[in-house]
Amino acid sequence: MALALSAAVAAPAMAQLDVEDQIETRQSAFTFAAWNMGKIKAQAIDGSVAYNEQQMLAAANAIASVANSGLGSLFGPGTANDKNDNTKLLPVFFDKPEKAREVAIGFAQAATKLQEVAANGGGKSALAAQFSEVGKSCKACHDEFRAE
Amino acid sequence: MALALSAAVAAPAMAQLDVEDQIETRQSAFTFAAWNMGKIKAQAIDGSVAYNEQQMLAAANAIASVANSGLGSLFGPGTANDKNDNTKLLPVFFDKPEKAREVAIGFAQAATKLQEVAANGGGKSALAAQFSEVGKSCKACHDEFRAE
Ligand code: HEC
Ligand code: HEC
Repeated sequence: MALALSAAVAAPAMAQLDVEDQIETRQSAFTFAAWNMGKIKAQAIDGSVAYNEQQMLAAANAIASVANSGLGSLFGPGTANDKNDNTKLLPVFFDKPEKAREVAIGFAQAATKLQEVAANGGGKSALAAQFSEVGKSCKACHDEFRAE
Repeated sequence: MALALSAAVAAPAMAQLDVEDQIETRQSAFTFAAWNMGKIKAQAIDGSVAYNEQQMLAAANAIASVANSGLGSLFGPGTANDKNDNTKLLPVFFDKPEKAREVAIGFAQAATKLQEVAANGGGKSALAAQFSEVGKSCKACHDEFRAE
């Protein structure tokens, strides 16, 4: 379901989690998104699994739901890898709030459009094209804010 | 977006992940779902965070997208805690396929309805009531198939 973009970058929707839980939860959100990206890659790009429109819609819904879940509340102060061993978030994240906002909005926009393409039965090649846009939005953030 | 229930229990939508990745991915999916359940609890049950309809819809979308993501493909043979240290899945899961199917369908139905209530602006008390149904569907599975 499409949401206004404001929801993607809105203030925390719950009491702030502690640092460990923020890290674990954001890693979980990205792992869940990546699993669903993998399904689209297999069916719409590689063709290694038979194309199934309903499964593609479910995968796109999942990716969009991560992008629009208010991930920002999982990137609180003190959660970067200068202060924690179990995260790849670079501390530069906190020095560049405008860049962080930009990549988060880019992800939300690309993923919401992926969901629309899948919901409207856009077909394999339209889905593949938008999958590639979503992939770029993941990479834009990783290049800037994620350690190797 | 509502999906036919068949999608919730459909055959794997991608080449099967290895055992470690199945375990990590299903734990991530549940962690992501639980985070979103926490938002609804805070806003619609506890009242510890101000009620925000759009955030509640985003949370319900996230929970439904997990429930309808084909989690079954992350519960492959050899992924229970008789063969792995890093999981709480009980081996009895593989002896009771009908019960497993029943709890998975229960989760998908309850979460899809939660999404409908949130999308139709059902309001706080309707959302709270359906949140409780979803919570029961989590517990039904945990009681049967998850170790302490
Ligand atoms: C807003 C920035 C941002 C966006 C957008 C983003 N990522 Fe990431 N991703 C990160 C950061 C930061 C980490 C490291 C998190 C940590 O270790 O705490 C990460 C970690 C991950 C991980 C490893 C998770 C784990 O278990 O440790 C995967 C997989 C991943 N991202 C995939 C993706 C995919 C796929 C997308 C797009 C569909 C995506 N990411 C979009 C910033 C982003
Ligand atoms: C189909 C069965 C099933 C349903 C439905 C289910 N769970 Fe679980 N859950 C499990 C199992 C099995 C595990 C253990 C997974 C593992 O360790 O491999 C688990 C683990 C978890 C975990 C720990 C994840 C981690 O990081 O190790 C949380 C939190 C959780 N579930 C919450 C929920 C919530 C909240 C819901 C409903 C919104 C839910 N579960 C629905 C079976 C289920």
